[in-house]
Amino acid sequence: MGKKRILVIGGSAAGPKAAAKARRLDESAEVIILQKGADLSMASCGYPYYVGGVFDDRNQLLCTAAGVVRDPKFYLNAKAIDARTSTEATAIDRAAHTVSFKNLATGETGAIGYDKLILATGASAKMPPVPGIGLRGITSLQSMKDADALRAIRDEGKIRKAVVVGGGLIGIETCEALHLAGMEITVVEILPQLLTFLDPDLAKLVENHIKSKGVNVITGNGVAEFLGRDGVLTGIKLKNGTELDCELAVVAIGVVPNVELARKAGLAVGATGGLAVDEYMRTSDRDIYAAGDCVEITHRMTGKKVFAPYGDLANLEGRVAGENAAVGDTVTFPGTIQTGICKVFDFAAGSTGLSEAAARANGYPEAVSVVNASTDIPGYMKGKLIVSKLVADRKTGKILGAQVVGPGNVAKQIAQWALAIQGGMKVEDLVNADLPYAPPFSLAIDHFIASAHLMQNKLKNRLKGISAAEVKAKLDAGEKPYLLDARGPDEYEAMRLGVGETLVPLGAVRKRLGELPTDKNREIVCYCKISLRGYEAAIILEANGWKNVKVMEGGIMAWPYAREK
Amino acid sequence: MGKKRILVIGGSAAGPKAAAKARRLDESAEVIILQKGADLSMASCGYPYYVGGVFDDRNQLLCTAAGVVRDPKFYLNAKAIDARTSTEATAIDRAAHTVSFKNLATGETGAIGYDKLILATGASAKMPPVPGIGLRGITSLQSMKDADALRAIRDEGKIRKAVVVGGGLIGIETCEALHLAGMEITVVEILPQLLTFLDPDLAKLVENHIKSKGVNVITGNGVAEFLGRDGVLTGIKLKNGTELDCELAVVAIGVVPNVELARKAGLAVGATGGLAVDEYMRTSDRDIYAAGDCVEITHRMTGKKVFAPYGDLANLEGRVAGENAAVGDTVTFPGTIQTGICKVFDFAAGSTGLSEAAARANGYPEAVSVVNASTDIPGYMKGKLIVSKLVADRKTGKILGAQVVGPGNVAKQIAQWALAIQGGMKVEDLVNADLPYAPPFSLAIDHFIASAHLMQNKLKNRLKGISAAEVKAKLDAGEKPYLLDARGPDEYEAMRLGVGETLVPLGAVRKRLGELPTDKNREIVCYCKISLRGYEAAIILEANGWKNVKVMEGGIMAWPYAREK
Repeated sequence: MGKKRILVIGGSAAGPKAAAKARRLDESAEVIILQKGADLSMASCGYPYYVGGVFDDRNQLLCTAAGVVRDPKFYLNAKAIDARTSTEATAIDRAAHTVSFKNLATGETGAIGYDKLILATGASAKMPPVPGIGLRGITSLQSMKDADALRAIRDEGKIRKAVVVGGGLIGIETCEALHLAGMEITVVEILPQLLTFLDPDLAKLVENHIKSKGVNVITGNGVAEFLGRDGVLTGIKLKNGTELDCELAVVAIGVVPNVELARKAGLAVGATGGLAVDEYMRTSDRDIYAAGDCVEITHRMTGKKVFAPYGDLANLEGRVAGENAAVGDTVTFPGTIQTGICKVFDFAAGSTGLSEAAARANGYPEAVSVVNASTDIPGYMKGKLIVSKLVADRKTGKILGAQVVGPGNVAKQIAQWALAIQGGMKVEDLVNADLPYAPPFSLAIDHFIASAHLMQNKLKNRLKGISAAEVKAKLDAGEKPYLLDARGPDEYEAMRLGVGETLVPLGAVRKRLGELPTDKNREIVCYCKISLRGYEAAIILEANGWKNVKVMEGGIMAWPYAREK
Repeated sequence: MGKKRILVIGGSAAGPKAAAKARRLDESAEVIILQKGADLSMASCGYPYYVGGVFDDRNQLLCTAAGVVRDPKFYLNAKAIDARTSTEATAIDRAAHTVSFKNLATGETGAIGYDKLILATGASAKMPPVPGIGLRGITSLQSMKDADALRAIRDEGKIRKAVVVGGGLIGIETCEALHLAGMEITVVEILPQLLTFLDPDLAKLVENHIKSKGVNVITGNGVAEFLGRDGVLTGIKLKNGTELDCELAVVAIGVVPNVELARKAGLAVGATGGLAVDEYMRTSDRDIYAAGDCVEITHRMTGKKVFAPYGDLANLEGRVAGENAAVGDTVTFPGTIQTGICKVFDFAAGSTGLSEAAARANGYPEAVSVVNASTDIPGYMKGKLIVSKLVADRKTGKILGAQVVGPGNVAKQIAQWALAIQGGMKVEDLVNADLPYAPPFSLAIDHFIASAHLMQNKLKNRLKGISAAEVKAKLDAGEKPYLLDARGPDEYEAMRLGVGETLVPLGAVRKRLGELPTDKNREIVCYCKISLRGYEAAIILEANGWKNVKVMEGGIMAWPYAREK
């Protein structure tokens, strides 16, 4: 018997990771990568930053931490891996345990045997099936080639107007990159909001920020047609008839897993369109594993299969597939809680776990959410705002999800919630969490812990919260809750909602009870800048007999709608 | 029966927090704070940043997020709390349920009754009992008064040389503040290392960084005498006879809990010197609670009582004491895992849980540690180095502790480990953690997850690690392990240990096996910049028959000793 041969199809993230792991665990195996593109191990999540000019050396996307480009020579010398670029796998013969390939540079074809096969064929950008989609000037930002082309456009500096089709994570990152490149940008999103991993209220805060940068944002409207002249893009016609001039359109409406090769070989494909794999990252063929953007994985909280094409998961999945291919099925991949984050100009926006709606729809009928707004570190250290929405299960107190947006340190908050969820932790476990505190790094009571405190108060029915969205809906419906702004007069002069509220500074509430509604059953909504004073005002009113007092969570800082000033 | 009266002694962190929480839970209670000092609710952890000139408005240390100074008027109006400053509690009569007080401004004395009493008397700076301790020019940085005095010294700009006595967290923060203020600083630490919450190797990396800023660091030497002329400090004499000129000495050798008032009233004091409290923050008297720097609390991992005078815990303890005083004993405080962090010039240094030695001494005889070094975010996003030491239990895989230092994002790493520990999570739970990834915020495989991978490899005996400290000890003892540097020639030219190592770039290892020691039992230590290539080199050697191959964890980046270049 000869050497064991592990064959990997795909050379972006999951493939090379699987190959490297397999090599480390079996120095004697033969490890081969077939990569259709010209490059290997591209840091594809870095494309928007290369396009935007955050750095200039393209090789930084392709090299190791020590600065060595991960090309076939590197793989051969450093890892004894035979990485063949510009080589497309064209068919899998499962019975014969062979893969047919074609060298796209030379035209040479052949077949190569395998003992274990790992599919890491990735995903491709979805393109809308509308007229004009073939015009020059329309691209995605999914491959190194796309990144190179967009970077060249940036460096030439000739294009003035661009449209980004799709307001998801990649769309927003692309929007920022093209804005940095000096273009006038419109983002078009067919859904009513950007960044659907956020609830609408938090998404609106992000949208406001994007607009404040001069970006034109159109939601609830899709592309009907790409317009052009002489085969070149000149504009976009939207479904509502609006026409936008543009010389460049970047489509970022999602990706579809590349499963044709596997499907033709008879491997099972899941309902999401991704390759079906078990917890060992094994496909329906026990000698074939799959990892990365071509697979569907398990949502750890709902148990459902989801398509989660993220670079971090691709690497982790590849590591598991590589180990199992090399030494037998010994390690498992538990799935995802769909943790994600993106930079949005001076904001970041992140999410982990379930939204309140998703939680209610997936086995947590008593899911409760609460909004918290505060700075990330103390004001005297120049703290920046973060707004969080935390979701927990009223029945058990278990943390179900969190969304965080703002200019402050969002990543740390999301990381903390992601671990709290993965640790199965409850609100009561977190209200006295011992976290690293010093003024350069957090508040004395970290925003994370304060969010847990708010949730605890809500679960104990001490905090009767109402969201900005609910208040807005009441006002829009003509309801007239008594709105009590508990801030000071100076703050009120500088910024206010102007929706019929009454200013009663917290320090004056106890003295001015006589001015409040005489009907003790009237709905009263208290708030302030972040609704800590609003909360204290509500407590005073309740102690004085008002029966229907609420606190607008997150205060003005979480109010995403138009304000008087 | 009249109103319930809740009396709080102490107005810094725990006291006001307890008072505010009690007020929110019982609007009808009478809540009184007696505060010896002139200020209330000082953000005392911010003193070093005020002294160093990070901000100039002293009131920022005293005000709410909305910019209102928390003075007695604020407490009265906003919270209906009667906060009496410059008022010292002089005795507790437990039988009569009264506290005697003295107004330090007017000399007025009196007694005040309580239903529930909360002690938040804080801690005082330890001062060394050596000759000259009474000289002018010697201070601590423990009170607002200290901060004011040091800030005035900074603003005058006359003092040129200062000594910081004590190389702990406060000492190092003070060192940076005085350095920012333009003084020439020497730090004197009696123990062999700075920052004893770190293991010596990581502490040494921090010490190297402090020295690189021009600060003189003396370890393993204490103060024998403060030298002076005409009652004014002129220098310090160390135990080894060295004399240092200085016009200012800031003593930061720790704090002692203020328990005299409680002790005289017969309340139980623990072995650490802090007030004994149960999980409800109740002292040995069921009507008296205590919180903050005056108490000792439980270490959540060892079960032992510890003195943990941290601002974040003081607030959380105060919140628990306030609630229980107001509504009965309903909530508990679980204790600490001793999470801490401090900024050290361009570095941060943090720790959570147990060190390997502490773990072994406290019920985890099979504690294992591993060192990881990498950037915090990708190189193309200008990632900065972080070095972590992770401790886990070999038997169960449970995470026991982590220490992290470096210029990169230390706080996020420590926060993640703190939650992993509090969630009782194991290495196997973390190797596939779903954390927020995007290039501005983390590596594709976050440093945290990579640390878990290294620990997993170590627990599976795939990674045979050796620490830089162990390698150094072997070399110092005259042992001659074969040291294999697996980096490239350019890297070797730019920086190297120069301790007898041989450069064999990873890509050349397989071809140059013939040059390696012929004795297959010879100890070989492989490393590179961060020891990923070192790990791969070790695997190749083991696969080729060498029996005693180790990897120097963290590579050159974690080597804290002198290098050739």
